[in-house]
Amino acid sequence: MPEREYIYRGRIINVALEGHYEIVEHKHAVAILAEQDGKLLFVRQYRPAVKSATLEIPAGLIDEGESPEQAAQRELAEEAQLGGDFEFLAAFYLSPGFCDEKLHVFRATNLFPAYAKPDDDEDITIEWLEPSEVLRAARKGEVEISASAMAGILFHLGAYVAD
Amino acid sequence: MPEREYIYRGRIINVALEGHYEIVEHKHAVAILAEQDGKLLFVRQYRPAVKSATLEIPAGLIDEGESPEQAAQRELAEEAQLGGDFEFLAAFYLSPGFCDEKLHVFRATNLFPAYAKPDDDEDITIEWLEPSEVLRAARKGEVEISASAMAGILFHLGAYVAD
Repeated sequence: MPEREYIYRGRIINVALEGHYEIVEHKHAVAILAEQDGKLLFVRQYRPAVKSATLEIPAGLIDEGESPEQAAQRELAEEAQLGGDFEFLAAFYLSPGFCDEKLHVFRATNLFPAYAKPDDDEDITIEWLEPSEVLRAARKGEVEISASAMAGILFHLGAYVAD
Repeated sequence: MPEREYIYRGRIINVALEGHYEIVEHKHAVAILAEQDGKLLFVRQYRPAVKSATLEIPAGLIDEGESPEQAAQRELAEEAQLGGDFEFLAAFYLSPGFCDEKLHVFRATNLFPAYAKPDDDEDITIEWLEPSEVLRAARKGEVEISASAMAGILFHLGAYVAD
């Protein structure tokens, strides 16, 4: 097996070559499907990487020493000032052809106010929206969504499978 | 707005800094939800980036000059030797916090045999599986899945919303 040769080591990513494969190492992430009265909590923010605003669900990177569930609780508090009961839904690699980032998705219910200091560099808007409306708008290209929002919408729309 | 300064220009990715943001530019991709008799077509392959085998659905990068639907047709032929009727389901950014890769998901029905030369560097296994079984196994950590597989499973399990 060819060795992994690093060509960049950065703040949130490392870039390496392994044979002819270009590989990006990235921390794992969490996303939270927060539901209330049939609506889903979305986060709108400008994303420099895609040069546009996206509609996502609360999400963020797992810090050193945190479990995925702890990270999900922290992110929901930081981004939406909410706590709740957390349930693991699924985890998946976002783009395993080149990147090792795995997204762990949780559902949060029985929401209550919680306070946590928002990240300084985040300029986000919180919106409670109808998931089916967001999917319809995304299918028409009227709004840009993330994989986290897509998974959240589809889990919400009834594809939940119990163990 | 800070300029985008490139630190690596490669085969499938470019890496750049924009202010304090680390950005990966990556071609857009397609994934195909191929359904037959209640089962979904999955692709199992070893992924160096995540150092393990994953269960995904047929997927690949959009070539220069191709439409997303043309890329989806080509990929399904190359990976599974199948053609079919294609319908656009949704498109979403996989990890817009750092990467501009967008995944366009299509459903393929009325499948028929089609021939296309597989990519030389792909060592993949095709498997028809029950989507709910795959989701259950993924939730238990028994199998690693991709965002494409997750979206395919959830769309299949009934979250489809017509325009």
